[in-house]
Amino acid sequence: MFESAEIGHKLGKTEFKKQEPKLRQRLLDLQGRLAQQAKFPVLILVNGVDGAGKGETVNLFNEWMDPRNIHTYAFGPRTDVERDRAEMWRFWQALPPKGRIGIHFGSWYTDPIMDRVLGHDRRAEFERRLSRIRHFERMLVSEGTLLIKLWFHLSKTAQRKRLKELAARKETSWRVTPQDWKRFKRYDKFMDICEDTIRATSEGEAPWYVIEGSDHEYRSLTAGRLLEDALKARLGGTKPVISPPAPPPPPPLDGKTLLGAYDYKRTLSREDYSKKLARLQRELNLLTRSKKMNDRSLVTVFEGMDAAGKGSTIRRITHALDARFYRVIPVAAPTEEERAQPYLWRFWRQIPGHGRAVIFDRSWYGRVLVERVEKFCSELDWMRAFGEINAFEEQLAESGAIVTKFWLSITPGEQLKRFKARQDTPHKRFKITAEDWRNRKKWPQYERAVEDMLERTSTEPAPWDVVASDDKVFSRIETLEKLVGRIEAAL
Amino acid sequence: MFESAEIGHKLGKTEFKKQEPKLRQRLLDLQGRLAQQAKFPVLILVNGVDGAGKGETVNLFNEWMDPRNIHTYAFGPRTDVERDRAEMWRFWQALPPKGRIGIHFGSWYTDPIMDRVLGHDRRAEFERRLSRIRHFERMLVSEGTLLIKLWFHLSKTAQRKRLKELAARKETSWRVTPQDWKRFKRYDKFMDICEDTIRATSEGEAPWYVIEGSDHEYRSLTAGRLLEDALKARLGGTKPVISPPAPPPPPPLDGKTLLGAYDYKRTLSREDYSKKLARLQRELNLLTRSKKMNDRSLVTVFEGMDAAGKGSTIRRITHALDARFYRVIPVAAPTEEERAQPYLWRFWRQIPGHGRAVIFDRSWYGRVLVERVEKFCSELDWMRAFGEINAFEEQLAESGAIVTKFWLSITPGEQLKRFKARQDTPHKRFKITAEDWRNRKKWPQYERAVEDMLERTSTEPAPWDVVASDDKVFSRIETLEKLVGRIEAAL
Repeated sequence: MFESAEIGHKLGKTEFKKQEPKLRQRLLDLQGRLAQQAKFPVLILVNGVDGAGKGETVNLFNEWMDPRNIHTYAFGPRTDVERDRAEMWRFWQALPPKGRIGIHFGSWYTDPIMDRVLGHDRRAEFERRLSRIRHFERMLVSEGTLLIKLWFHLSKTAQRKRLKELAARKETSWRVTPQDWKRFKRYDKFMDICEDTIRATSEGEAPWYVIEGSDHEYRSLTAGRLLEDALKARLGGTKPVISPPAPPPPPPLDGKTLLGAYDYKRTLSREDYSKKLARLQRELNLLTRSKKMNDRSLVTVFEGMDAAGKGSTIRRITHALDARFYRVIPVAAPTEEERAQPYLWRFWRQIPGHGRAVIFDRSWYGRVLVERVEKFCSELDWMRAFGEINAFEEQLAESGAIVTKFWLSITPGEQLKRFKARQDTPHKRFKITAEDWRNRKKWPQYERAVEDMLERTSTEPAPWDVVASDDKVFSRIETLEKLVGRIEAAL
Repeated sequence: MFESAEIGHKLGKTEFKKQEPKLRQRLLDLQGRLAQQAKFPVLILVNGVDGAGKGETVNLFNEWMDPRNIHTYAFGPRTDVERDRAEMWRFWQALPPKGRIGIHFGSWYTDPIMDRVLGHDRRAEFERRLSRIRHFERMLVSEGTLLIKLWFHLSKTAQRKRLKELAARKETSWRVTPQDWKRFKRYDKFMDICEDTIRATSEGEAPWYVIEGSDHEYRSLTAGRLLEDALKARLGGTKPVISPPAPPPPPPLDGKTLLGAYDYKRTLSREDYSKKLARLQRELNLLTRSKKMNDRSLVTVFEGMDAAGKGSTIRRITHALDARFYRVIPVAAPTEEERAQPYLWRFWRQIPGHGRAVIFDRSWYGRVLVERVEKFCSELDWMRAFGEINAFEEQLAESGAIVTKFWLSITPGEQLKRFKARQDTPHKRFKITAEDWRNRKKWPQYERAVEDMLERTSTEPAPWDVVASDDKVFSRIETLEKLVGRIEAAL
């Protein structure tokens, strides 16, 4: 794997001086076109061996091109806030928007590799992390990112030589830390793991490029050329081919549906409701204040047809909570910054730290509901979303989040009744728009989308609860009961 | 102060039921107009005595209006990330954008009051914090925020009664925590401090409204009406009158300027440059890696005319730093989200935590430079900006940031030379635009603005360093020397 990066590649200084200005000009032009089109982001991962010129290359890219359009991030050990959230959270925060170049120096590869080298992770765990990375990168590429993964390599002899050289000169000795020597001692083990990593994550849509790092001129021109080629191809319209997800299954032959299996006639008396509500709110409050909540968080999603009662149910929940404990995120059209990112980005932004809750009034499921039905995204897009969403929620759950999802299910008749009531009540009129009536006409398409969603995204770490909601008070109590039950089981 | 809020205000339930739907409808209409115009944000502060109905009122506002356009934040003890930054940082993160209503439950008043009640702060410190709050609120209002400060009050007897009632009923007993009783014991002291606070912070542009909290109906309708009146007046065009800042001083009579006092002829040989650069980069690196940096941060600002050498100087600095330690923020046009906020908001967003550095390539000084000269903001706006910027930087410094600011000063002749060189060098051509030539024609106006800026914002916690930069290498060395000196002095 690294053989061809240990043969002492070199380029003369004269040759470099001749080529550099031209390459630079071409890169600048490409960067300009990228920014002007603003149709996709570029993300460059910089990994490899210490002393192989990673930092120098990052600096060079910033010198060659307009640094104001390059977002460079370097990642070290995770901070408190980062440790409170899923591992990938901090990388999501650092994704470049469309039209810009992002450089991740020490990317999502560093921790899995080092945890394996240092023996913190067993083989199985290591492979699970790599497989998650593959999935994540495929999502990025599907969302349009031009992903360029550069690996800078040095042979063991070359690394020793390089560290010694740096340490010997007064002007550069500070660049070599005791940490570097410590890591050098593990060179062989490190390289084994790196080789496994590169092999396992060189998918067609996001291959690694291994570059020999010992010669400044060779290394720099090679990296620059790789970037140039990738940019040129993509700006010219070449897109990576990604194997399409399985086609949507046809509706079941007998017409039976998940949603049809619920009993929409069940009701609750006002008196029972008040009593049960008070008890459940008390239970919920005590649970969220329990010590065990300190290293857990709560992510709750509410979805449902228009007028299903999402808002009023959320209020019954929040009434029981300390206002500092939770935030409600109503999901509407994305902002300009959000539109320049993969669709899950704006939800990653809102993920709570430990000891906190976020309640989503509509959510990332918009991708497989409204965006699917209204054709805001392509069929391929929403089909791959099921797996992307599952991976997202699984990561939340692993980082300590209790993920609960409620589909408040009403019948078309009940919706009509509520729409009419909204139109007749002045202070409720704002809740009903022409769009609601339009959506209503597409009830069968929405129902189909809901069935697929429930079927494909109800997972063990993040299960759906469907609540028959034609009776408002019954629905609220059942939702609260299920929520309390889910939290109790998790703590 | 609280007398009129201890006389047992009450409203009959029938009256409430009659008025509530109408009020609700009016509030909804106003909220709709607010969202449609999207010209200013509304921020409601909710403070007062425990048990006086603060939480209930917040819930009610969310029920009465469209909660998707209300951003409610509740503030508890500061998290690690928040403690790493200036006290006001978390409130800046939670400011509502134009067209939206923000509710801060437990606002920037809570900590100053409690720190005084618990004896952590002496009188002088307490008053300093209040005076900072006044300054901050004036800025918010000047930037267009409709600020509504609600104080919910209960007499001692009423509070005792309320806590006992809640504790006695099984359904509500969880609402009363041991903390509440502990705080109740300090009622008298607490009220003294609160009275001081309200008196000291009831400016004409942001007065407090004290509401008696014992009766649900009275309290709710009163708060709703206050919100209605304030919204109606502001949407109708009534703006708060804020005393204007002092007019800009005329240029000095003798024509002598700050910038003219520097020697632009000093140069440095390439050989001296290389030696000094290596030494200074080494020093800078060691300083930033010192243990003392762990509870400090570094905020460095670069300003200068076009082609003054900001970018290349920044690169000489970052070459010496661990890539994880710093971020460079190039400041360009604000995004949609940023335009919906006070102008300082997008810089508060980027403030580093302890042990980190942020280098701004252009900065908030755009307000008093380009925005002033190009008349992107009014004279009143940039005149008040001097004080607002000083307050901002003072807060950074107090929270542990080392604030360094560099004006790279070049002469018009040198700029012309560099512009021409940029046009003649292919890979530098992107750096020169028609706008640069236009700006150059306004050199005298820019110079005037720079003089005012240096005069008014070079402060002890955040001093300016002017570096004569006609000779690039001399300028880089001098900048690095000053930067190293400033950090050394601070650690």
